[in-house]
Formats: sequence, C-alpha cells, structure tokens
Amino acid sequence: MSGNSIGKLFTLTTFGESHGPALGAIIDGCPPGIPLSEADLQHDLDRRKPGTSRHTTQRREADEVKILSGVFEGRTTGTSIGLLIENTDQRSKDYSEIQYTYRPAHADYVYDQKYGFRDYRGGGRSSARETAMRVAAGAIAKKVLAARGIEIRGYLSQLGPIAIDPDRFDWAEVDQNPFFSPDKQAAEQMAEYMDALRKEGNSVGAKISVVASGVPVGLGEPIFDRLDAELAHALMSINAVKGVEIGDGFAVVSQKGTEHRDEMTPDGFLSNHAGGILGGISTGQEIIAHIALKPTSSMRLPGRSINQQGEAVEVITKGRHDPCVGIRATPIAEAMMAITLLDHLLRHRGQNADVVPPCPPLL
Amino acid sequence: MSGNSIGKLFTLTTFGESHGPALGAIIDGCPPGIPLSEADLQHDLDRRKPGTSRHTTQRREADEVKILSGVFEGRTTGTSIGLLIENTDQRSKDYSEIQYTYRPAHADYVYDQKYGFRDYRGGGRSSARETAMRVAAGAIAKKVLAARGIEIRGYLSQLGPIAIDPDRFDWAEVDQNPFFSPDKQAAEQMAEYMDALRKEGNSVGAKISVVASGVPVGLGEPIFDRLDAELAHALMSINAVKGVEIGDGFAVVSQKGTEHRDEMTPDGFLSNHAGGILGGISTGQEIIAHIALKPTSSMRLPGRSINQQGEAVEVITKGRHDPCVGIRATPIAEAMMAITLLDHLLRHRGQNADVVPPCPPLL
Amino acid sequence: MSGNSIGKLFTLTTFGESHGPALGAIIDGCPPGIPLSEADLQHDLDRRKPGTSRHTTQRREADEVKILSGVFEGRTTGTSIGLLIENTDQRSKDYSEIQYTYRPAHADYVYDQKYGFRDYRGGGRSSARETAMRVAAGAIAKKVLAARGIEIRGYLSQLGPIAIDPDRFDWAEVDQNPFFSPDKQAAEQMAEYMDALRKEGNSVGAKISVVASGVPVGLGEPIFDRLDAELAHALMSINAVKGVEIGDGFAVVSQKGTEHRDEMTPDGFLSNHAGGILGGISTGQEIIAHIALKPTSSMRLPGRSINQQGEAVEVITKGRHDPCVGIRATPIAEAMMAITLLDHLLRHRGQNADVVPPCPPLL
Amino acid sequence: MSGNSIGKLFTLTTFGESHGPALGAIIDGCPPGIPLSEADLQHDLDRRKPGTSRHTTQRREADEVKILSGVFEGRTTGTSIGLLIENTDQRSKDYSEIQYTYRPAHADYVYDQKYGFRDYRGGGRSSARETAMRVAAGAIAKKVLAARGIEIRGYLSQLGPIAIDPDRFDWAEVDQNPFFSPDKQAAEQMAEYMDALRKEGNSVGAKISVVASGVPVGLGEPIFDRLDAELAHALMSINAVKGVEIGDGFAVVSQKGTEHRDEMTPDGFLSNHAGGILGGISTGQEIIAHIALKPTSSMRLPGRSINQQGEAVEVITKGRHDPCVGIRATPIAEAMMAITLLDHLLRHRGQNADVVPPCPPLL
Repeated sequence: MSGNSIGKLFTLTTFGESHGPALGAIIDGCPPGIPLSEADLQHDLDRRKPGTSRHTTQRREADEVKILSGVFEGRTTGTSIGLLIENTDQRSKDYSEIQYTYRPAHADYVYDQKYGFRDYRGGGRSSARETAMRVAAGAIAKKVLAARGIEIRGYLSQLGPIAIDPDRFDWAEVDQNPFFSPDKQAAEQMAEYMDALRKEGNSVGAKISVVASGVPVGLGEPIFDRLDAELAHALMSINAVKGVEIGDGFAVVSQKGTEHRDEMTPDGFLSNHAGGILGGISTGQEIIAHIALKPTSSMRLPGRSINQQGEAVEVITKGRHDPCVGIRATPIAEAMMAITLLDHLLRHRGQNADVVPPCPPLL
Repeated sequence: MSGNSIGKLFTLTTFGESHGPALGAIIDGCPPGIPLSEADLQHDLDRRKPGTSRHTTQRREADEVKILSGVFEGRTTGTSIGLLIENTDQRSKDYSEIQYTYRPAHADYVYDQKYGFRDYRGGGRSSARETAMRVAAGAIAKKVLAARGIEIRGYLSQLGPIAIDPDRFDWAEVDQNPFFSPDKQAAEQMAEYMDALRKEGNSVGAKISVVASGVPVGLGEPIFDRLDAELAHALMSINAVKGVEIGDGFAVVSQKGTEHRDEMTPDGFLSNHAGGILGGISTGQEIIAHIALKPTSSMRLPGRSINQQGEAVEVITKGRHDPCVGIRATPIAEAMMAITLLDHLLRHRGQNADVVPPCPPLL
Repeated sequence: MSGNSIGKLFTLTTFGESHGPALGAIIDGCPPGIPLSEADLQHDLDRRKPGTSRHTTQRREADEVKILSGVFEGRTTGTSIGLLIENTDQRSKDYSEIQYTYRPAHADYVYDQKYGFRDYRGGGRSSARETAMRVAAGAIAKKVLAARGIEIRGYLSQLGPIAIDPDRFDWAEVDQNPFFSPDKQAAEQMAEYMDALRKEGNSVGAKISVVASGVPVGLGEPIFDRLDAELAHALMSINAVKGVEIGDGFAVVSQKGTEHRDEMTPDGFLSNHAGGILGGISTGQEIIAHIALKPTSSMRLPGRSINQQGEAVEVITKGRHDPCVGIRATPIAEAMMAITLLDHLLRHRGQNADVVPPCPPLL
Repeated sequence: MSGNSIGKLFTLTTFGESHGPALGAIIDGCPPGIPLSEADLQHDLDRRKPGTSRHTTQRREADEVKILSGVFEGRTTGTSIGLLIENTDQRSKDYSEIQYTYRPAHADYVYDQKYGFRDYRGGGRSSARETAMRVAAGAIAKKVLAARGIEIRGYLSQLGPIAIDPDRFDWAEVDQNPFFSPDKQAAEQMAEYMDALRKEGNSVGAKISVVASGVPVGLGEPIFDRLDAELAHALMSINAVKGVEIGDGFAVVSQKGTEHRDEMTPDGFLSNHAGGILGGISTGQEIIAHIALKPTSSMRLPGRSINQQGEAVEVITKGRHDPCVGIRATPIAEAMMAITLLDHLLRHRGQNADVVPPCPPLL
C-alpha cells in the first residue's frame, strides 16, 4: 500500500538511494520450496549492470546481491526474503555542484517540493539505481514462473530512429549485443548512432518489448486489477517510461473491428492483436507489452534551469550517465512483467483453484 | 485490494452486471463537508449515457443514480458513500443466442475459463455498463478537486483515421458534438465516417486525451505508486484500452534529450513534453494523458469462433452496440483521472502536510 | 484499505447509516460456483433482527436483503456481489432532541471532531445498524466454508454477572432462547435479570464466544497477519467490543508453561489452551475466541454531558434501544470469524497450494 | 498487504530469521524532515535486548541497528527507510536435536504443515528475534509522535500470580528494574518468583499495559479500521499474545451502563473506562491497552510431542530461553502502539485536514 511496495500476494518492497550505503528489498508471499540461490539473482543483475559496454554508464558497480532470509537449505521457506546490495562506487564529488540546482527533466525540483529537501547525490531515491532490486526480485519471480512453464523475454524494439526489422528477428541475438537487439544489423547501426550521440553529449529514447509465453488462461482480476492495468502500472513505474502498450497498442486506434479481433478456431487463435489479454484476463496466448523510454535527462549539453533560490542557472551534468536508458531497461521490464504475473497467478489460484471450466483451454 | 476496488485513501469499489438488477458503488475516504447531490453526478452520467445520438448504442438507459449514504444535509459526511443505478432496459433476448458461444475479442471465453461459467447476458460483469459507476465516482472526485482549483477535461484526439487538427482546437467545441471532438470540422468528418461504418456493420478504434490543470506540485508516491504508474493503471483498467501515454508518450522514443527536456526559468517551465509528471511526481504543469481504445468487439459482420464444446462456429452479434467505444470513453477517462488525482492528493497530504519547501512552487 | 473495507482476497466493503435510505455491501473475491440465494443470508439476518423478543430493541426492521449482482442461475460468479437492505422503520423524531448534544459513551462527540459534523439521527454511521451487512456477508462466507467442512458457531458466555455453567452446556439450547445461551437455566436467570434492568432503565455488558471447527491446519500469514491478529481486528471492529481473547485468553497470565502447553501425541493434541492457533497459524484444532461487549450506551437514566457549544447538559436517551448489546452480537461475531477464516483460506491457498507437508496433519 | 507488512500510510515490512545472517525492515511513509539517528533506535533496542539481566535469555546479541536509507543529513527524507541488524550470536548447535521434532506450543508443527518445511534453528521466522525490528520501527514512530506531544509508555501489570498494586504505581520505577514494573515492591517479589521458576525449569505468563497520552481526538477509521481494532491487530500480532483489552477490557462484561460510561463536563471527561477510544475513534483521553502473554514455550521440563514421522517423542528444550516472555514485551507493545497511532495520524490528516469541528476539543 505504500509507494515503495507493489503486489498483493507476491509483494516487493524496496529501499535505497543512489549514494546511500546499500539497496535492499523484501519479497513476501513467494511460494515455499522453490530452489533459490544468489547465483539465480546475479545472472539477471549482471545483464543490467553498468560498465559492461562502452555504451552504458561508466560507473562500475559490483551489484553483488546477498540473500539474508527466506531461503533455507537452498529452497524458499515461504517467509519474507530479504535482499541486500551494497553500494561500492558512488563518487559523491561528481554531484556536489548541483546540490542547490534543479536539473531539468530530473526529479530534483519535485522532490524538494514534495518532501522539503532531498538527498541530492546522484538523484538519491529517484536514481535508476533502485532498479537493481526490481531485477533481483524479478529473478525470483521468473524462477517460480519457469517451474510452471512460463517464460519471459524482452528485447529492444527501437533506439531513437533505428527500429528493428521483424524479418531479421532472432531471439538468439538479444544477448549477443549490448542493446538487447534481436536484429544484428540494427545493433550495428545502433552502435554507430550511440557513438555519435556520446560525442554530441546528447541522449535519445528507446522502445522495449516484453513477451511472456506459456501463461495460463485466467490471470487478472477485473475490473480494476485487470492484468493489463496491473502490467501498465508495473511498467510505467520504471524510471523514464512515458508510455505502455499491450498487443497492438496505439495501432488499434485506426484498426477496424474486423482487422483487430483475434478469431478463434478449435485449433487456437488466428492472431494476437490483443497481446494475450482480453477483458483484462490472460487468454493463454503470448502476452506482449511495449514501453516507451524517454531520453536520459543527464547530459553534457547545457540546459536552462533554476536553483533553490529561484534564480536562472545553466546546468551541465558531468559525471557518468547513460546516453540511452533503454539499453538497461530490458531486464527491468522483464522483471516487472514477472513480478506482476506471479502475483496474479497466486491471486487467481487463491480464489479460483476449485474451478472446472466447461471446456479445456484453447492453448 | 480486491479486483473490484481502486485507490488507497480515496477508494472506489463497484458491483453490477449488464443485465443484473442494478449497478452500485461504494466510495470511501471522501473528505467531509463537500456539498454533493445527485444532480452533480447525473450531469456527468448524462454525458456518457447511451442513446444520446445516433452514433451511440441504441439502448436507452435512464442511468439515474441515487445516493444512499455518506451525504447529510447536502454535504459529504466522511463516511462511505453508497451509490445505486437500477438497470431498466436490458432486453435479455438479444443475447440468448450466444449463451454457449464465445464471441471473438470479447471476454466470454476467458471468463468461462477463469470462473467456470459466466453471466452471458450482454457481457455480464465484463460489459461496459460498469463504467457508469466510474463516472459517478469520478464526479464526486471532480467536485472535491474543483474546490481546490483542479480541473479535468477530456476530448477525442482521433477516431479511426481521422485526427483532430491542433490548430483548430477549441475546448468549447467538445460538448457541442457527440464525439467530444474539440475540432468542429473533424467532428463533421467523423459523423460521415461513422454512418458509413454503421452501414458496413464494422467498428473502429479511437484515441482519447485527458488534461488536468491546476494540479499542485508534489502528487505521486515513488517508486511504485508514481503518479504516472497509477494513472496508467486507472486508465488501462477501462474496458477496451490497449495503450496509455503520459505527455509525449511514444513520441519520446525518437526524441533527443535536448528536444525532450522541459527547461525551467524563473517564470516557469518552457515546455511540457513530460506531460506534467517527472520522477513520478506532479510538477504543477498540466497533466496530459492519452489512451488508445480498440474497436468495439460487437459487430454485425460475422466472425469465426468456437462454442463451449470447442466446435467451430460463426458469430454475428445482433442487438445494440457501439460502433466506436471511444465516443463514450471521454467522461470515463476524466473520471479515472479524477479518482487517481484525489487519492494522491490525500495521500500526499497525509504524509507531507508539514513540509515547507525551500522555495515557492514554480507554478 | 479504506476504513470501510476488510479482507485481502475475500473482502467486504459496506455503507449505510442508521437513518439513511439503505444499507449496502460489496463482497469481492468470493470463489465462483457456490450455490447462493437470498434465503441463505436471510436466515442469519433473522437471528440478528431487532424486535424478535422483548429483550431486544423494539425497532421493527424487515431487514430484507437483496442480492444485486455476483450470482447467476443460483451460483456465485466470482465477480463482486452487491447486497442491499432498505431501511424501513427509522422514526427520526426519536432523536431530534440530541441533535446538538453529545450523548456520553457514544460516538457523537468524536464524529463531530473527526469530520466536522455528523448525521445525528440514531447514531448515523456509528449505529449498530451497519452490522446487518456484516451478518449478510458472513452468511456468504459461512456457506463457502461449510462446503469445506468448516463450521462456525457462537454463544453467549456471560451476561452481566450471570455466567453459563460449562457442565450444563448444550449447543441445541443456543437457538432456543433469545440470549444465544447454551445453558437453559442461565437463560432463565438472564431473562429475569434483563426485565429488572429494563425497569431500571440501565444496561449491562456481555461476553460472547465463537468456535470454528473443521478448520484445516496452516491458515494465517505471519508475522503481522497472523490468524489471531486478524481475528482480533475483525472482532474488535464490532461496535461495543472492548476485549478479545484467543483460547485461554487472559487466564494465560497466571498459567505456568507446563499447564498451558498443548502437548501432542500420535492421536492428536491433548488439550487446546491455545484456542486452535499457534505462532499465528491454525493448528487444525477448534478455533476459540471470546469478546467482551460493553453495556449499551443508550439508556433512560440521565447522564452528564456537554452540547456543541461546550455547555453542560443532562442527557436522557429515549426511544428504542438494546439494554444489552450482547444479545445480538453472537451472529455478528460468527460472521466476522467466517469472513476472516475464508480470507485466510484463500490467501493460504494462493501462496501454498503446491505444498506437500512432511507428514499428514495431526487432525 | 502481505503477511510481513503492517500499516496503510506509515508501513513496516520486515524479514529475518532467528539464525539467519540478519534481520531487516523497510519503513515507508515516514514524514520527512524528522531528525533521526541510529542512537534514537538503539535506545529502545537496548531496553529489549536479551542478556541485560539474569532474568532474561542468556543469549548475548549486540542488536546494533544500521540505517541504510531514508535519512540524509540527519533527517528523514520521506523515502523508504531501510534498517539492518546483523545476527552475531546464534549457537546453532543448541537446536539441532529438534530438527525433526515438533516442540509443543511452538510453531514448528504448523510451519511444516503450512510451508512444507521450515528453518528449524531457534524457531526460524517464528522466533521472537523478529521483534527487534518492530522495536526499531516503533522508535521511529515514537520520535514523530513525540514531536506532536504524543507519548507512549508501557509497564508490566502482572507476572504470573503477582499483580502490581495501583497504590504503589510510580512511572519512574519502570526503567529501574528488569521487569518494567512500576511497583518496586512487586518487582522484588517477581525477582524471587522468577528465580524459583528458573530452578524449576518452568515458565509463566504476564500482562503488559501500554498508555498513550497526548493523542488528539479523531484518530481511527470506522468501521473496520477502528483505532481499537487496529491496535488489537498490532498487539495480537506480537508473539505469545493471547488477549487484548482496551480500557476496562473484560471487566465491562459485568459493568452496568451507568458505571461504564465516561460522562463529560465542560472541564473534560469524568472517567476513562473506554480507554480513550469511542466508536473506534480516539477521544483525546489516554489510550490504554492491555495484553496477555502466554508462558514461554521453551522449557527444560519435558513435554510430550511427536516428530515428523508422527511418532511419540519427549521434548526437552535446552539452550537459552526466556522463562517469562513478558519481561521483554513492554518495549514491543509500545512500538506496536506507536506504529499504529502514527499510521492513523497520517490517515486522518490525509482525509480530514480541512475539517473545522463545531467546537474545540474537550482535551
């Protein structure tokens, strides 16, 4: 119920600032008996970790996660799971200049207005550092879901003006380049584009897609906790996200009914414009979501802003930053999808475990 | 916490099926002392009411709402407000054909899978009838917000292929045509387009925009209950919504950082690409959101589907239905925006009422 | 999350004032497929209904409940269930005298302070009328639980100075007298005592006990949503309750460890001092709870108080009232026990449905 | 919403097992700008710490708490506060004998049934170690409340057969003896009694009382989140609690209305049988609650039980344990009272900050 918590049965609560001693999380409601180790979490954290390529933030974090509770003899106990990542590489001095300045397109101004003051170092709580905990919790959720045949994979659909070509789509490419691009050719173009962008001192946006397969029919709690509404919540809560689509998303605006509807036959659905969710409930088809990430707000190019006294100032953000946040968002989006799906799997089971549908599921 | 509830401090819980005796709602957490009457609610309900033009469902509902509690001597008491609308015009016989059939792109199939069976008449709980209660609750929220100078207005941005022209934008036009279009010329094109669509027996999607002005800075509860995440949740929970954008939405994907950022001066922000929300917190600028609505699933044009036995069938939906859901969604989107903003206004006040920011708000 | 809501998966939200047009409730999360009719609810409501004996309030209410949604062809659909009871016998004129007066030991004063004003007629929202909805919702929960072999029964343990004699305990007596007393002899003494009390114009307290049998082991969510903590919450939320005990309750203060502990053998537990809950989780034994109800605040005997201007006044409550609230609380306590147990049954199932314990349950 | 979380606006979520690496907590919703340091928390933790007298567990824990986030330059930021206490003294070997045995009156059996297995060392998650985090969070709440003139103090009312004498009540005595007894003479009797108990190898129960003064009128959210109901929840959630009373508690059963009611005069209330709460809302008087704690389950005296195979066994708990849990519960009960009051203070302010009551509060 608090702002730092998400989920109803499977819940994630987090803490931690960019330059504080540590980031942490408490995961509650995880089914017991699931094999779990720090290595399971570390894998996904490493995918997200800054410093892995020249295209991401040059801040080197070990991002080593420790499991402090909720796991015994290698399996989840069903009690709350505590996670901790110690911050080891903060370089406070990079940010001291902007202690009294509001960086444009950052949360500096609104945090000061909301709370009266803020931890100004590196964005404090508003920093993208907190996403490490989302990824760790997501890794737990993914493990539970995987045991049920549910798989979640994400990829970069578009970086600035460069869109992937669906005809060159190859899942195997996604982890082979620093962009999570399933299109090798596009990845090469993106690398060049990013180099130019870095020289320019600018940044650009991105579009990420996440796909969940093997999801059983029936997940989602109408009318307000529809699965798509909860996914939208979870995905929009990621730093820098400005749009969420399910299935065909905004393309449906100009679609006719006959074009949009996913007809059914005894052998299955004939299409998936709906993105796997109808009436707020999963159909058993792949769940497909897309998010739009705005260009990073930290740039070397100067911007006009004000300081705490309300005086006009020019702001230049030196230090280490991502020229494209999108590059790191793929594992985060996967994590949020996983957390939401697991929560709904448990909620559906809680209320409806005795249900016998009139016919077998289509998929 | 349950699926039929939304909000943390200001909460809305609803019930009611398309063909049941009544729709109802309980609104909790409304600040006391607010003047409120049934007329306040009826105004917004009438804007949503079917049968008001040839372009909407020909089902005639009185949609007369009664306030059953929580108001005394014309003012809210602070206790829970019960609302009731009796269903008077259902025409059950229109739907009996599809009792054992799953209409494509409807929730029939998923409800049977999730719950084991369903009220098949008119979509049951999955019907858009339930939105009447959202609008009624939204009217209450709007009233409370209006007393604080916060105004919420929506409009149709696009109907199928017809987009409004920003240069012809006029708020006064919105309530002058059945489309909520702020562009009179576009409204005329839409009318023709809809007539053709109705003859064809098809449907089309729409894009709705909602704007909240006068919102104070500071609303939103990072990191998971960010204001944009909660708006996305509330808006995506509306029947037929497949996408949500805040501010520039998916346009940010190809924007550069220098283009996207809203610079600040002592006289205010220089732009509003962010749509009024930064770091998940309101900036004091207009909050701008857009939603994409899929084409109505009920159509006269036949579609392939299956029945409860898993046999292939052809489905034709006779009876009354909307060729474009978007025409009615504007008041619903306004309502969800209002409910979310009021909830956050109360939550922010609860935690931070003592805060004195270091400088006055920019707006 | 709001004050008028209880439960996480199986939730109850209510509205309604003593002298408003109606009382209502929304029950969410009820498993689908359960046979349910208005008669099921009416039975428990009639047990609670005022006017059934000379010992209870002389206000005659039909207390006829209507089910407005969530039930189709005689079974629950899994969607939200709306309930309505219209208030038919209010007699506003009985209370107009105390419009500006604060009755001692009532909520008049605190409601005016909290909300700024109140519906003064008959206690408004603070009136015990709202408990009708708890009983109706409890009847639904009881039905779901009964299908799983869980039974909930309550009785009056003590009325003023008259305690029941455990040696004369007979469940069959409980519904044979207006007190819910399992001890016939005590019931006769209570009747005499109550007649004297009524003549005196005074009131007295009571102690109610509730027993749930057939509860499976494993319900309860440590550490904060322990089953006993949630039962305490649900029971203490009943109007006039000032104390809650589980099992031996306050008797444990002077018990030694060897006396208190419920030893186990291969044939079962040897005692039940714990009242069926250990470590916040059900053991499979009978769950036993007791509540203490304060004497009714409405009395003919004058009391000193103040009015809205802060002046000293004398208050005499005329009109119809209960000389002992306890007489009506038994079905309410049963209802709150049922609602809590069902919520936990679903929550436990949601998270732990796959668990295989190392040995069969003891019971 | 999860079992390991409590509170709506001011929330506490915890993790940590008796023999895990650490205990932790996340506190969310704390108002910003409150001065806070580790020393503030350590003070209350030291009051609770085992090993401080011969009468408590001989397990020596540093119980040193670290604040990992949510505090900047000595003040709370309004973002989530992470706390950590590392476990340093566990002595696993003390518990290995009972790995496959169910200790009577412990949670061993129910945890195995609920989750399929458990961390058997020292009670795992069911151990009283977790209360350290409640106390730490309570210290934060107390600080915020103290700034508003609200003070919370607890004391031991009764240990086994030894009750304090109200005529010898002295608040200054409470922190002068290891029992939190306000009656010096009783404390001496308790010491002798405890020595005998320890020799016997047995344990005994206790009754703790908590008093909150300076509480403003108006806290509590009827009808389900009444302040007394939420206090009952919070207090009953403490390990070993079997009963909760507000004000006169179970004594009200035999009180007449004229005896129980707290009459009002222009100078204030004439008594406080209600314990500071009426209609579920604080009156402004002292809030008084009492809890009953059962005798410690860990004893040297053998008890009959079963093992995981269902065979009869005899259980002797060696190692370090509390012969009377009550001795340590006083700071824990204070903490739960503080957490609940702060949550309600924020909730009330959120909804009702604009309320102007018709007259000034009585107190």
